[in-house]
Amino acid sequence: MEKENSFVIQGNIIYAPDRENFTCFKDGYLVVKQGKIAAAAQELPAEAEGLPLRDCRGALIVPGFADLHLHAPQYIQIGMGMDSQLLDWLADYTFKEEKKFADPDFAREIYPLLADELADCGTTSSAIFATIHQETTEILCEILAEKGLRAYVGKVNMDTNSDPGLTEETERSLKDTEEFILKWKDHPLVRPIITPRFVPSVTAEMMEGLGQLAAKYQLPVQSHLSENHGEIELVKKLFPEDKYYLSVYDRFGLLGKTPTLMAHCIHLNEEEMGMLAEREVYAVHCPASNLNLNSGLMPLQKMLAAGVKVALGSDIGGGHNLYMPQEIVRAIEVSKARSMSDPGEKPLRLSQAFYLATKGGGSFFGKTGSFEAGFAADFLVARVPSYQAGRSLPEQLANFIYHSYPQDILEVYVEGRPVKQAK
Amino acid sequence: MEKENSFVIQGNIIYAPDRENFTCFKDGYLVVKQGKIAAAAQELPAEAEGLPLRDCRGALIVPGFADLHLHAPQYIQIGMGMDSQLLDWLADYTFKEEKKFADPDFAREIYPLLADELADCGTTSSAIFATIHQETTEILCEILAEKGLRAYVGKVNMDTNSDPGLTEETERSLKDTEEFILKWKDHPLVRPIITPRFVPSVTAEMMEGLGQLAAKYQLPVQSHLSENHGEIELVKKLFPEDKYYLSVYDRFGLLGKTPTLMAHCIHLNEEEMGMLAEREVYAVHCPASNLNLNSGLMPLQKMLAAGVKVALGSDIGGGHNLYMPQEIVRAIEVSKARSMSDPGEKPLRLSQAFYLATKGGGSFFGKTGSFEAGFAADFLVARVPSYQAGRSLPEQLANFIYHSYPQDILEVYVEGRPVKQAK
Repeated sequence: MEKENSFVIQGNIIYAPDRENFTCFKDGYLVVKQGKIAAAAQELPAEAEGLPLRDCRGALIVPGFADLHLHAPQYIQIGMGMDSQLLDWLADYTFKEEKKFADPDFAREIYPLLADELADCGTTSSAIFATIHQETTEILCEILAEKGLRAYVGKVNMDTNSDPGLTEETERSLKDTEEFILKWKDHPLVRPIITPRFVPSVTAEMMEGLGQLAAKYQLPVQSHLSENHGEIELVKKLFPEDKYYLSVYDRFGLLGKTPTLMAHCIHLNEEEMGMLAEREVYAVHCPASNLNLNSGLMPLQKMLAAGVKVALGSDIGGGHNLYMPQEIVRAIEVSKARSMSDPGEKPLRLSQAFYLATKGGGSFFGKTGSFEAGFAADFLVARVPSYQAGRSLPEQLANFIYHSYPQDILEVYVEGRPVKQAK
Repeated sequence: MEKENSFVIQGNIIYAPDRENFTCFKDGYLVVKQGKIAAAAQELPAEAEGLPLRDCRGALIVPGFADLHLHAPQYIQIGMGMDSQLLDWLADYTFKEEKKFADPDFAREIYPLLADELADCGTTSSAIFATIHQETTEILCEILAEKGLRAYVGKVNMDTNSDPGLTEETERSLKDTEEFILKWKDHPLVRPIITPRFVPSVTAEMMEGLGQLAAKYQLPVQSHLSENHGEIELVKKLFPEDKYYLSVYDRFGLLGKTPTLMAHCIHLNEEEMGMLAEREVYAVHCPASNLNLNSGLMPLQKMLAAGVKVALGSDIGGGHNLYMPQEIVRAIEVSKARSMSDPGEKPLRLSQAFYLATKGGGSFFGKTGSFEAGFAADFLVARVPSYQAGRSLPEQLANFIYHSYPQDILEVYVEGRPVKQAK
């Protein structure tokens, strides 16, 4: 295995070491040693000695994408119910579909399709909501691990205000969650993440238990925050003693005590943004979902200015793009739509959006999403059309982001091991 | 040839005869006779007698898409310069690229890629801006005709305020245009359309000549209208005697004297909308371009309420989606983004957006974009994932529109002849 993931690959290397810049090596070299980046350079570096060379000259070599918010069971409902808003859509579509994942056979039919599409799309890292079902959540983990993808997977917890078929008994839910944690916490690629669905569907008792599990096993947390006005009102009604929606998570140790992802974060005031920044919580921006569910447009530039860490998420099935280049474009488009009515929102530039989908989100998994030495060798190789050969690499990247399909991604690697190969 | 385009095809047939409804036949029959729809029905109809049956049960059968605004030469610049707005983007990117199409060899290299992608994407009808160059505009027509696609193609006219390498001598431009018209006006699929670039880049003399050509040969017209505030100001300065931007076109017989397409139409008042409605001008909505160039969001519902005909356009390279399902989604998303700040703008529903991209836009080409008897047999066959087999056809369609790639379109037909076939 060491041989398999130690090699040199040559091509048009481009990555964003920070939000404002690209680093580019046209026909440069990327040296992979035991699944980690040893060097990226214009000339063949000393680190390459003795390693086999894979010639991909002319093709783009880019860090793999990080999708920090997606619902695995909603894969089967993408695009349906888009004439509704959040709470109706949950009741009319989502909860019906999620119940199907009580069935292991059904999970074994559907989840491989999701894993294959993630690999096809060059998404090397993802943070996934499964369902309440421990057994099929583990099936999802097995399928992702077998495919060789990097992921945090959450067994979802819900014990109130939910569809009867998706409402757990609190103690049992916590016990299932701990069992799941114990089985997966030491896997090299696929690991558990504490996943209360969102405040309206968990009791105080459940949140207290989940906060304790997060602390006991030092596990990350993911949930939803301030997506929709109706949802925010509901939280106020359910937890009137807490100042803000996020105060509820905070009270139970679910807001940055361990690394935390909060999806959406659309309707926050400055104080709330300050709390996210201080606790180093990642706000996961899901631009397609913002539009599809008519939830509002996250004030991305304000969040960045407040020092909040931001990542991108596809949020299928509220969103519909597993293909992250399209989600990068959506992030730029949403910032432009917002800028039309809010002069404080400067349009996001390509380098900024690309950073969010690579190193920005990738940092949640440790050193992933960049080609600096020591980072995981998670990357993709993409076709460059012949007429683009003479362009600069940022131009080739722009064309790839805006005008490509999964079929244009020829190879994908995680820890230097192929998860998609040229046919 | 008559045999080739007379057949019956069985599958999940769905189309939108109007903006509010779908007509569906699960495992129904579509009868094609000599390139036209003879019948669409649940049970095998009498019209099918003696015709070969193609079994596509389980797959979706949908009218082909109409893309009513795209710039062929900008195919090579998709995604680049998206950090700019219209006038800068034209100067910094577009005009540089368009000059390359003076070269017939270059056109022969690039235009087949565009034609192939249109067919791959199920775009059976399109209204295309070429460049000022007569020779390569004809090459584009030949390539589209050979591929079997339906299109209106315009040799672009520009004789002022343009890049020096793209500024024509007026009389010569009109002479070239007439030559081009005479060669292509009787082709069964690919026909000429009068194409002044936009008011800022044509003189009064040019517009007068083009208006006369449109009248003489009874040809349709396409141009741009009110995309960007800077552009509108420029028109006011250039033609101070005309009340509105569109009044300039109107004065020269270029606004609805013959069938007319006006791309964008973002910033119009009620009187202008009324003029478009009265003259039956098609407003071509290009939602991705609206966002990418930060031009503003077309008030689609207001336009429809005013009785304006609306079609969809990809507007590559201001837009980036040749794949029209993504442009259908963008139209819905843009209407939602607009609805967030403008209560008069109700979110577009899927049936409405789908209609715009099929029968709505298709009507510019005559009877295309629907499966009513007598319509052209322009349609596509798309893969339905196994887990969608039990869904209603509107749900299958929603999933296809939101979650598919060109590779999911298996076959495409124009006038009953295949332009894309399963591999």
